[in-house]
Amino acid sequence: MPDTTSSAPLRIALAGLGTVGAGVIRLLDANADLVTARAGRPLEVVAVSARDRNRDRGVDLSGFAWEGDMTQMASRGDVDVVVELVGGADGPALTLARDTIAAGKGLVTANKAMIAHHGLALAESAEAQGTALKFEAAVAGGIPIVKGLREGAAANSIEHIYGILNGTANYILSTMESSGADFATTLKDAQELGYAEADPTFDIEGIDAAHKLAILAAISFGARVDFEAVACEGISRVRAADIAQADALGYVIRLIGMADISTDSSGAPVLLQQVKPCLVPKGHPLAHVTGPTNAVVAEGNYSGRLLFQGAGAGEGPTASAVVADLIDIARGEAGAPFSVPAAALQAMAPAESGARIGQTYLRFTVSDRPGVLAEITAAMRDADVSIESLIQQGRANDGGEVLVAMVTHDGPESCVTYALQLLADSDSLTAPPLVMKILED
Amino acid sequence: MPDTTSSAPLRIALAGLGTVGAGVIRLLDANADLVTARAGRPLEVVAVSARDRNRDRGVDLSGFAWEGDMTQMASRGDVDVVVELVGGADGPALTLARDTIAAGKGLVTANKAMIAHHGLALAESAEAQGTALKFEAAVAGGIPIVKGLREGAAANSIEHIYGILNGTANYILSTMESSGADFATTLKDAQELGYAEADPTFDIEGIDAAHKLAILAAISFGARVDFEAVACEGISRVRAADIAQADALGYVIRLIGMADISTDSSGAPVLLQQVKPCLVPKGHPLAHVTGPTNAVVAEGNYSGRLLFQGAGAGEGPTASAVVADLIDIARGEAGAPFSVPAAALQAMAPAESGARIGQTYLRFTVSDRPGVLAEITAAMRDADVSIESLIQQGRANDGGEVLVAMVTHDGPESCVTYALQLLADSDSLTAPPLVMKILED
Repeated sequence: MPDTTSSAPLRIALAGLGTVGAGVIRLLDANADLVTARAGRPLEVVAVSARDRNRDRGVDLSGFAWEGDMTQMASRGDVDVVVELVGGADGPALTLARDTIAAGKGLVTANKAMIAHHGLALAESAEAQGTALKFEAAVAGGIPIVKGLREGAAANSIEHIYGILNGTANYILSTMESSGADFATTLKDAQELGYAEADPTFDIEGIDAAHKLAILAAISFGARVDFEAVACEGISRVRAADIAQADALGYVIRLIGMADISTDSSGAPVLLQQVKPCLVPKGHPLAHVTGPTNAVVAEGNYSGRLLFQGAGAGEGPTASAVVADLIDIARGEAGAPFSVPAAALQAMAPAESGARIGQTYLRFTVSDRPGVLAEITAAMRDADVSIESLIQQGRANDGGEVLVAMVTHDGPESCVTYALQLLADSDSLTAPPLVMKILED
Repeated sequence: MPDTTSSAPLRIALAGLGTVGAGVIRLLDANADLVTARAGRPLEVVAVSARDRNRDRGVDLSGFAWEGDMTQMASRGDVDVVVELVGGADGPALTLARDTIAAGKGLVTANKAMIAHHGLALAESAEAQGTALKFEAAVAGGIPIVKGLREGAAANSIEHIYGILNGTANYILSTMESSGADFATTLKDAQELGYAEADPTFDIEGIDAAHKLAILAAISFGARVDFEAVACEGISRVRAADIAQADALGYVIRLIGMADISTDSSGAPVLLQQVKPCLVPKGHPLAHVTGPTNAVVAEGNYSGRLLFQGAGAGEGPTASAVVADLIDIARGEAGAPFSVPAAALQAMAPAESGARIGQTYLRFTVSDRPGVLAEITAAMRDADVSIESLIQQGRANDGGEVLVAMVTHDGPESCVTYALQLLADSDSLTAPPLVMKILED
């Protein structure tokens, strides 16, 4: 267990020297005096490890011991805390995390996949060992949202937690909004500008956001982390026409991760977790979040709506979050990683999404022929879905398709689902409809 | 010193049973289970005190000891922490705070005036006693900005801290914006709706915001709290015409508290602290903050821009912040109230505001006669102030006045000040000009 009372340096081993690892070293050097003053003791890197020893990272590593096998860091006698910045839900990162905690050392990680999959087991071990497990950098980059929930909003029953959890997806959607360009073009530009990776799947399909959401939901609701239960849908089906129609109706489109707690018919708590593109009213704070920014809204039963916004990724912001965790540990703060002891986190069944009452945006791509609109509106009527507004594009596009977009009045999502079932076999629809929730203002 | 390791209840004495005090009691009752789980032990109110024992506050006080003289709470043997919600920079609140800390008990307060004036001395005592002094609720209501700076952004050198720190002033300005009404009418409506007090001086003249700013500046920059050095200007001189002209130029008007650190010619750190109405570009996150909401921007050298937004006052949000502090104490978190030890906070001289480079909005009220515009623009030229845009109202108002509004290019504020000196004796001006900084995007 790290010595949390002395003014002796907190001795750090750093596994992974990519962008964030190099950023941590730079930050600890540039801000050394103030970090020492705030932590009450120096933060001192003693050992580092990475795949390639010889790569130039623009930081001087000569003062640190080099560990060829990073999993050996856990057993070094000269280390109090290991910072894991290797990534990957399993493999060496997980081995290092387990061994570090088992050795009674603190662990700081930016690894959202590992925490989403194994955070619960790691937290149980850390609590049993009385050592720290911290992952501020795993959620929303530089935004201190884990601390914001664990400490800032700790007095509240959180009623809703939702936000923009992936900067790449937000960059693409907000760029489509300002440029009018389509998804494929915007993604390609984003890749060239470095806002999207060569393989963008994790970002644009919502998986990265789902990792973060599962962590936020656990802290917010005292639930066991359940990544598998996150219903996940990406942004690749959002068209320029959807953004234009949303705009005409007073909305923007954002990829929103949201978690809500409710009770099922037997009174047991059930957890809704989903990452999906949503319509956000232009007056909502999340509508103004553009570019690669992240923002999280926590609605507490006493605090009301709290908004936390900042850079969702990048060297500086992520290093800022990692070092904030190290300062916490240096100060002796080593409480339950998920705010309540891991053993007290409740297993909650996934909620039926259909029970939600709200407005929905539906966009159909249909053949340009008579009667199609009547078919769609009849299905809505038969499913008891009330339509607030409907836009039909005047002319077919190059593929002979017409877009029909509509916004429903408040109603149960299950009715919308039923309407779509009624239309499932229709040969008027040229592609599966795009269905997006509308956030309340 | 409170017992911070056991699972015994944290025993609380509550001084002041106004809106916030009653809210704390309600919150601790409604959220008892989750607060206990997160704090690791029950939070238990044992004694209360207020001026009037018989007033109906809508909460059951029968389970608590009644303390007729609240300053006696400090010496009660059955109390670990005193919550001070009485208010007033001095008087009984300060006596209670001093005695509580001297007795080795923790102190939680929502009293911004007391912390702005005496926070440094109280922090020194608390650190000497090894006990907690916490004041999350003193700044920006329910927004966890003290924790956000002390913990979330702890790794950063804060480069700028600024925000909307007074809900009443923001309600008035944003209502003037949406309604087009003038200041006096809007204030009167706000008073009738309960958004402004009968004596609104502290809110509309920026004093309340200045208290909060002085606290934020100390934490952000490691400076000794220096409320007296805050340059303070309220919103009562802002006219509907200013808001309309700002709008035409792409801005909204907000009462902004801002603090910046820089160095003087000898290299010593100097601190700029001011609360003033400012023009905020419509693309800036603070431009979207309407109604009685608060929002704080902290720009760190690694985190980049962080935004914290939420309710700035009210029973629920303030109680949320008070209880978050109590949970911190129950968890054993009793670090330096201003992030670094009080003795390490630096005395910093006030910065010369004129050194700032930026854009400025100037609004003159002038007599409706020939040559006035030439006089003003000549003064600008002679002071080396470059004008980006100028709007002159077409016709004189009822008082025979014409408004001339202009926005300068980037330049030193000292030049603007010099231009105003050149015009000080002009009999063309019917009132002192209104000068507002323009925030960068």
